[in-house]
Formats: sequence, structure tokens, C-alpha cells
Amino acid sequence: MSDAFALMNVIGLLAFAIVGSLKGAEADLDLFGVAVLGVLTALGGGIVRDTLVGRVPLALRATTDVLVVLLGVALALVLIRRFGDLREHPLVVLPDAVGLAAFAATGASVGYEAGLTPFGIVVLATLTAVGGGSLCDLLLTRVPVVLREDFYATPAVVGGVVFWIAVSIAIPVGTATLGCAGAALVLRLLALRRGWRLPTV
Amino acid sequence: MSDAFALMNVIGLLAFAIVGSLKGAEADLDLFGVAVLGVLTALGGGIVRDTLVGRVPLALRATTDVLVVLLGVALALVLIRRFGDLREHPLVVLPDAVGLAAFAATGASVGYEAGLTPFGIVVLATLTAVGGGSLCDLLLTRVPVVLREDFYATPAVVGGVVFWIAVSIAIPVGTATLGCAGAALVLRLLALRRGWRLPTV
Amino acid sequence: MSDAFALMNVIGLLAFAIVGSLKGAEADLDLFGVAVLGVLTALGGGIVRDTLVGRVPLALRATTDVLVVLLGVALALVLIRRFGDLREHPLVVLPDAVGLAAFAATGASVGYEAGLTPFGIVVLATLTAVGGGSLCDLLLTRVPVVLREDFYATPAVVGGVVFWIAVSIAIPVGTATLGCAGAALVLRLLALRRGWRLPTV
Repeated sequence: MSDAFALMNVIGLLAFAIVGSLKGAEADLDLFGVAVLGVLTALGGGIVRDTLVGRVPLALRATTDVLVVLLGVALALVLIRRFGDLREHPLVVLPDAVGLAAFAATGASVGYEAGLTPFGIVVLATLTAVGGGSLCDLLLTRVPVVLREDFYATPAVVGGVVFWIAVSIAIPVGTATLGCAGAALVLRLLALRRGWRLPTV
Repeated sequence: MSDAFALMNVIGLLAFAIVGSLKGAEADLDLFGVAVLGVLTALGGGIVRDTLVGRVPLALRATTDVLVVLLGVALALVLIRRFGDLREHPLVVLPDAVGLAAFAATGASVGYEAGLTPFGIVVLATLTAVGGGSLCDLLLTRVPVVLREDFYATPAVVGGVVFWIAVSIAIPVGTATLGCAGAALVLRLLALRRGWRLPTV
Repeated sequence: MSDAFALMNVIGLLAFAIVGSLKGAEADLDLFGVAVLGVLTALGGGIVRDTLVGRVPLALRATTDVLVVLLGVALALVLIRRFGDLREHPLVVLPDAVGLAAFAATGASVGYEAGLTPFGIVVLATLTAVGGGSLCDLLLTRVPVVLREDFYATPAVVGGVVFWIAVSIAIPVGTATLGCAGAALVLRLLALRRGWRLPTV
């Protein structure tokens, strides 16, 4: 894994942990609930990804990511007392976009290594990127935001497609992973800047 | 897998994809959300089934079923613009009953091959048949219809029991699978025709 | 598994099955729904535990636990007609605390055998103890009680930590498992008696 990509992953874990914790605090959960939502937002997508390809989730087998996530939860507890709900602030929204891109890329590459079909690769990229946040929405009994008029899952889908096209034309997996992350990130930032939405039926 | 059974499976995938998409459209999801609900209704039960017995989900490893499902989603998008919500129409309800029966049968036979107990076989038949639709209900934050006064899961349970009795008395698995599907289908059609409901406590 | 621990496990399965069934009846589910909630409350945590470490769930492979749970569901159906909702009654609350402790202990020991990190062991202890009840809350579209101001998950977390400390200092796994169950039970009973709650943020 290249250094650039490892950095994106850490930024994403921090951002997702903060977003999840803020969501839990806003829903009046207790301390345990807030921590669960932070951890689940950051690690849930990867846990779903690993479970689907038959691996024991990395989050339960390795410690580094977990420490980053717990740091994110602690940070959120400090931030919320000083600044309130920062989920719309660029300092949260931009790292969150980085995480979306990084997680889509790990999902695509894990799916590829597990021998999935193109459809499977795109599904895994998307679930890894939006699965954690969606599980949190479900725990709070809300319809996952990604299903409703928001251009959030689409960059992950497009990232998965980019990855699959890249490996189909014999581009090395490492490069394809970066291409996936790059495409998802650019698309998410454009969507944020221009207020893109998908049409309803 | 016999031709009759393969045909039932395709009919079921199409019907479930259409039902899920219509459900998503009625809940005002965006295009991505509608597609997710169609795909999840059709493939979700099988994904749960495979995950529980430790297989990478077939839906992520093989392409045929996925193409049928995407066709179903596309068909639903056309249908809804012309006819509105068709979920109560016999042209949707009858294929849906066929799918319920076919999916219960694949669940029972996968459970049997994985060496599950009779209870495990019945659980897997039921989850495969109603799991996709129930996951969709959860995403829409609704109590799954199958838990509330509707004779929908019961045919799958009975199909699982029929399968288990059949293999216990040394009937070949292929015949037991057809017996499971037949029992579930007949029971579901009778329930529809007569308006059967389970009692509440 | 020691006799004391096996007894705790049976008490827990019965109590969880009763609690889940009562929850389903109170939500006006039909008979199938009530049975599903009873079974899921008792077996759901173990199913999540086994799926995460890549095992086919014990509940689908072995029959003893299932029979205990079905007995619990039947018992609940009798109880509810005679006494109404007994979920706050000491005869339900105390065995429920025993189950919480026993399930946290099996989660911790399964996580340890699967080679998880300390974080993974604590997560598995907690999910095994509170996963079934939380899945039921989700099926009823309620925010899981454990996320909101209730000292219910915390004893499982502490039990997981106790287990991990014990094995770290070379205490045998069997003893560590009993220590985990004991710590969780004592803490839960104290929380019940004193009305402890976690603070909100």
C-alpha cells in the first residue's frame, strides 16, 4: 500500500469516527452509544466487506486502525463540547470525502483479490465506503442518507467501475486502487461544490 | 438443477427486483436508492444464506442472476411511469409467490449441503425467501411485513419442513427441493386466495 | 465448559427467549413474529459472533440450545396470557442478567480462540451479549436500548476486559471465562439495584 493511500486511510478513519460520534451525540445517546456509533461508522464498512469475502474482519485482528478510530471518538467528545455539531464544517466534510474515496478503494481491491465479478467489486467498493454510516443510520432508525437524494454513494460506485476498467486493461492493481480513490474523491468534491443530487423516479 | 426449478428462480428474481424497486420508488428514494432496494430484495436473501454457511455470496461470484435482477430494476422503472404502484397486481403477486417458493428451496438445499440441523435448514429456507424483503423494510425503517399478520413467511417455513422430512425418509435431494418449492408455492397461493392470516398472541 | 457455566448458559437462553417473545407480543406481532423475536434475542448474539469469526453459527449446527430457546418461547406464550408483560419482573430480570454474563463470556472465549486482538475480544463479548436484543430492537424499528442511557452493555464490555487481562497474565482460559461471567453478572446486578446510568455527552 503506497504512503499516499495509507495517509488517505488514516484521514478517513478519523473523519468517519468523528462524524459517527457527532451523529450519536446529536441523537442523545449515552457515552457508550456515542462511542459505538463512532467506531461503527469508521470500521463497519470494512467489517461488512471482510465478512462478505469470508475473512475475519481486519478491525478485529489488527490494532492500528482501531487506535486511530478511538482517537477520533475522543477528539469528537472534545470538539462537541467546544463547537457543537461540526458535521457540515469543511474540516469534517473534506476529510470525510477522503475517507469515502480510500474506503471505496480498499473495498474494490479486496473484492478483486477475492475473485469477485465486476458487479461484486462495485458492490464491495460501495458497501465498504457507505456501509458503516448506513449501519449507524439503521441503529438510529433512520433511512440511510445514501438512499435519498444525496450524491454520496455514487462516487464510490464510479470508483468501483474505474477500478474494474483499469484491471480489465491490465493496469496493475496498485495503480487501479489509486485510480479508484482518485475518481471517487474528485467526484465527491465536485458533488459537494455544485450541490449535485440524483433524480428521484 | 432441473429446468423447471431454474425457470422458477428466474421468475422469482425478476419479481423480487420489481417489488423492491416499486417499494423504493414509493418511499421517494433517489435512483440509486431504488436500484439498491430492487437488487437487495432479489439478492439479499441469498447473500444472507451464503454468509451464514461461510460461502462468498453467489451474487458476488456469478453474473447471470445479477443481470436478471438489473433487468427487473429497469423494467420496474418503466412500469412505474406508466402504471404507478403495481405491487398488488396479480402480474406481480403471482411471480412473487413463485420466487418465495424457489428461494425457500435453494435455502433448504444449501443448508442441507452445509450439514445444518433440521432447525438450521428451516431457518435458512425462511431467511433466503424473506431475508431480502426484510432487509429492505429495515432500510426503510419499517417493521418487516413478515413479522406482522401476513401469511408470507409461513409457506417458506413449511417448505423447509417438507424438505427436511423428505430427505429424512431418503428421498433424493433434487426431488426434496422440488417438493419444498411446490409446498411453499401451493400454500402461498392458497393464503393469497383465502386471505389467511396468523393469529396475534 | 464447567457445569456452573453450562447452567448459566441455559438460564440465559431461557430468559432471553422469554424477553424477546414478550417484546414481540407487546409490539402486536403475529405468532410467527413473536417466535422470531424470541429465537433471535436468544440466538442472534451467538450467530453474529460465529459469523464474524468465520464459523457456521452453532445455533444452526447443534440442537440443544435451540430446544431450550423454543421452550422459552412456548413458556412466554403461556406466561403472557396469565400475567401480561413480565419484562420488569425479577423472575425475568435476574435470569436475563445471568444470560448477559454467560453470553459475554462465550463471546470473549470464542474471540480469544480465533486469535482476535484485545479490542476484538471486547467487541465479540459485547456483541454476543447484546447483539440478539439489539437485532430485535432494529426489527421493531427502535433504537437499541443499549445505546441509550442504560447500564446494560457496560457489564459485557467490562467482562471482556476482565477476560483479556486474565489471559494476559497467563490465567487459564476456563478460569478467565468464569471471571468474565462473574464480573459482568456482579456489575449488572449492582447497576440494577442502584439504578446506574451512563452520562450522555
